[in-house]
Formats: sequence, structure tokens, C-alpha cells
Amino acid sequence: MKKYIKAFAPASISNIACGFDILGFAIENPGDEIELFLTDKNKVEILEITGDGNKLPLEVEKNTAAFAIYSMLKSLNLNIGVAIKLHKKMPLGSGLGSSAASAVVAVFALNELLETKLSKLQLLEFALKGEELASGAIHADNVAPCLYGNLTLIRGYNPVDVIELNLPKDIYCTVIYSDVEIKTIEARKILPKEIPLKQAITQWGNVGGLVAGFLTGDFNLISRSMEDVIIEPVRKSLIPGYDEIKKTALNAGALGCNISGSGPSVFALSNTLEKADFIATEMKQAVDKIGIKNTTYVSKIGNNTPKILEVE
Amino acid sequence: MKKYIKAFAPASISNIACGFDILGFAIENPGDEIELFLTDKNKVEILEITGDGNKLPLEVEKNTAAFAIYSMLKSLNLNIGVAIKLHKKMPLGSGLGSSAASAVVAVFALNELLETKLSKLQLLEFALKGEELASGAIHADNVAPCLYGNLTLIRGYNPVDVIELNLPKDIYCTVIYSDVEIKTIEARKILPKEIPLKQAITQWGNVGGLVAGFLTGDFNLISRSMEDVIIEPVRKSLIPGYDEIKKTALNAGALGCNISGSGPSVFALSNTLEKADFIATEMKQAVDKIGIKNTTYVSKIGNNTPKILEVE
Repeated sequence: MKKYIKAFAPASISNIACGFDILGFAIENPGDEIELFLTDKNKVEILEITGDGNKLPLEVEKNTAAFAIYSMLKSLNLNIGVAIKLHKKMPLGSGLGSSAASAVVAVFALNELLETKLSKLQLLEFALKGEELASGAIHADNVAPCLYGNLTLIRGYNPVDVIELNLPKDIYCTVIYSDVEIKTIEARKILPKEIPLKQAITQWGNVGGLVAGFLTGDFNLISRSMEDVIIEPVRKSLIPGYDEIKKTALNAGALGCNISGSGPSVFALSNTLEKADFIATEMKQAVDKIGIKNTTYVSKIGNNTPKILEVE
Repeated sequence: MKKYIKAFAPASISNIACGFDILGFAIENPGDEIELFLTDKNKVEILEITGDGNKLPLEVEKNTAAFAIYSMLKSLNLNIGVAIKLHKKMPLGSGLGSSAASAVVAVFALNELLETKLSKLQLLEFALKGEELASGAIHADNVAPCLYGNLTLIRGYNPVDVIELNLPKDIYCTVIYSDVEIKTIEARKILPKEIPLKQAITQWGNVGGLVAGFLTGDFNLISRSMEDVIIEPVRKSLIPGYDEIKKTALNAGALGCNISGSGPSVFALSNTLEKADFIATEMKQAVDKIGIKNTTYVSKIGNNTPKILEVE
């Protein structure tokens, strides 16, 4: 029987411009790592949290990863002791699905460690319980892509209906994270409760176009559809220099550029690695100019599933 | 040089549940026919309108088909006389894209008659000018599927961006038209100007699912996505017995059932011709029961382009 596992789960970009709360994809890096140790203590405990997560609560019922593990063990009726070391390898409140990555890596690792062979959809349920702690509501648009490693559509929530969508063979994502914290809960508060029907129609026209563009590999359609008339106009004010960053990315050849999740990270899509790298350089210059500490990440997207790093 | 043409263009189903104003597909029948005669009179004129269109205006500037032809000739700088016989073979105000079919058959026939070889997108522009007369606004979600003969997505309107989407090989549509007239303009007036963001998210999750379902041939996904939380709840009150008709269609095996355009026609999708026929019988019984005259139509969908019937 396995006693120890170390695993990784990736960051993810949710919304993808028009697809607020329903679309998302996983990137290669950054991501979170977790170590799980089976113990004979009959409880879930957090030994340590390293990296950017050193401000996170160590109590199981307040911690995204630990609570997901606790929920899974409880549901499976397993009286097993699990000790956790969580290594946050990405910034909190970055708009990169940090809490989702912690929740997913936890349930993914536990499933592998215990060989419980739960399906992705079953794991999703437990990861969502962790994610709920962090965002204050059930949102699967980071958890699902992180767990599936691909582009996912959350068609609906009653019950959660995750559709895994194929991406074109060559599609790349550039992310720039500016070091200003935005809490998802706060970024939700500023959104309108009601929107004009006309704007909603524009938005779902773009959602249809974006899904079709991804599925048929039509980069031009992807580009035309990466427009958000509802969320971006409100949230961009939270991100210093947003308009300039976006203009820079588009000028550098991006198919589209928008806010990653609730920000402050900004992402751009492109169809070659060279372009993705160039966009990273250009975006970095734009953020450097306004004097904010930042980090860029470049990923191929399409197959960035959680991974086992070590197992004993 | 050709002097005469007779052509056909099909009815179409717009909205397809969640895709209000953006999705539509053409059906095999019913449809409109037009006869065009080149004359030496240097003007566009309507000789007659037969069938269900005998109440339609004969003035060129008030008639959908004639105005589309007039716009096209004017734009091409052609001083050609055209006389029109329009044969309305479907009810007006039926929610089946009757005015769109008239506008499309007109520009399609003229393009073939004069061999002007305009692209579909160019023809669309002139057909939209005709359609605008009827609906009071530019809406391409009947004109586009009627002209392209397929499933179309109107991604946006600035400029009109029509995406032709492949349908699964075997997919069928059953339509029941109840003989009560609903004017599109009136059916638009009762819609809310503002909608809750939460409902909009549900709607665009379904739009994403429906587009993905059609493109990947996932009938179960099509079925789950055929849900409209915004328009159907308001408009169904205009259609006598709507809830009963829908329940009947679903019980008879339909993938989904919803209002066709602004109604009163109701359509259902299914994956075999046998089911489509059975659904027609069952829906008919439901409408017969409430004592309203009705007609049913069954079509394979996917390749129902306008057709030349005669040319001389």
C-alpha cells in the first residue's frame, strides 16, 4: 500500500473573455504541489504550507486543500489519517485559479494515493467543496479545467455539467501577473446584478463563436469572439494599466487578450510559441513601465492535467 | 441571356431554445417560391402574390422580396426591369421566418438570373434590407440559415458575422404551426429590457453547450442544452397549449422542444425520421385537442439551401 504521494495541479484561466463563469482552460505553469502522508492519527492535518500560501489558515475546515480531502474521506466513509504539506507555487488572489489548484491537487493526490479510482466528475465534487471555501460560492470554471487539464465548459450547475472541449493542436497562452491582490469575492461585488438583454445577446453570440472557433480550429473566429461586453468594462478598473497591457498584447500578435478570472492576471492567446514568448516580453515591458512587480508565464494549452511527481 | 427564373427558399427555425437572436437552421419545407421575369420597363414591380401572402402589400418599398431586389439592383447600378410573382407557401407571422424566406428567395433568384455571382455574404446584406421592413430591425437569424441552408450562428452585427456550423449527419426537426398569428414586433415588445446576470450566465452556458453538441454530434448534450430561461417563459403565454405541446414532444422522444422564432410554431429535434414523424402525430393530437387548426412539417436538417426550380 502506498504511504506517500507528491502531486502537481496547474493554474487555470477562467472566463476566456466572453465566457464568464462557464469557460476555462488549464495552463502548464505555474501550479500547486501537495505532499500527502498516510498517518495512523485518524484525522486530516496540515503540517505546513510553503511558498505564497504562508498566510493561509492551517485549520482543516478553513483550508481549501484540507477541506476537500476531509470531504472526500468523509463521503467515502474512510477513517484514514492524512497529513498535508501544501506548496503554493503561485500567488494568491491572482486570477489564476490558485484555490482551485489547491483543491484539485489535494483530491487528485488522495485518489491516486488510496487508489480509490474515483472519476473526474466525482473528484470535481470534492474539489468544489474546497473551492467553495475560498470563493464563497460554487464555481467550477477553474476547478474543472484544472482537473481535466483541458478547455472545459460548465454548461450548467443543476447538476454540475462539465463538457471537455478539444482545442486546436497549436494554441498558446501568455499570462502576466501584476503584484496587486484582487479577492474574487470583492471582484464579484462590483458586477451588475442586471444587464441589458441586448448586451447579453452580444455576449452569447461571442460564446457560441468562441466555442465553435476552438472546436473547429478557426483562429480568426476565436479572435473575433474574444470580446466581453459585460464583465471586462467593470473589472478592468481593478487592474493597473489594463488597457495598455491589452493593446500591447494585440499589437504583438495575440489572437485576443483579456482578464484571467477576476484578475489581476491578464492572458493572451496566440497560435505559435514564438508569438506567445514575444507577447510575454512586450506585456512585461508595459507593466514594468508603470512600476509594478510582475511575472509572466507561457504555456501550450490543451493537455495540462494534474500529475504525480513522487509516490512511495 | 436568361429571362425567367423560378426559385424556392426554405422556412427556418431561429433561436433554437437558448440562442435568442443568434442561432437558426433551415428546414426542408415549407418555403416560399418566387418567379422573376426580366422586363424592359426599367423598374421593379410585383405582378401578384399568391397563397398565404394575399394580404401583403404590392408596393415595392413595402414588400420584403421586392425591396430586397430593388436594393440589390440599386447597389449593383443595374437599370434592369424585374417583374415578380411571389408565391407564399407558408403562413405569415408563423415564427418560421416567412419574411426571411421571401427576401432570400428574391435575392437568390436574382443572383442566378443575372449571373451576378454575388457571395452568400453579399446576398445576405440585400436580403436583410427586405427582412428589416418586416421585423422593424436588422435580424439575421432567419435570413442567414435560409440563405446558407444549414445551421448558422450570428456571432455579431458590427459587421454581420455569419458562422456556418456543421450539423450531425442525422438530425430531424418536427414543426407544428398553430393557426394563431403572432407579429414579431409584438413578440419583441413583451421581452424584458434587462435580465439578471445569473440568468444570462445560465443562457450562455447553454449556448456553449448547444454549439458544442451540434459540432461534436453529441445528442445528449444538445438535449441538455436546449433550455431557454429568458425568452420562453415570457413568450410561451402567446401560444395556446404550449406547455402541453412541449411535454408531448419530449414524451414522444424529442431531444428538445421550444418556440420557433417568435412563435406560434413550436419545433422539436430528434435523431431519427421515425421519431420525428411520431412527434408530429403526437403534437398534432395535443393541438387538435384544444381545437386550433394546425399543420405539421417534418424535415431532415443540414442541407436545405435555396433551389432553382425553373430557368429560361
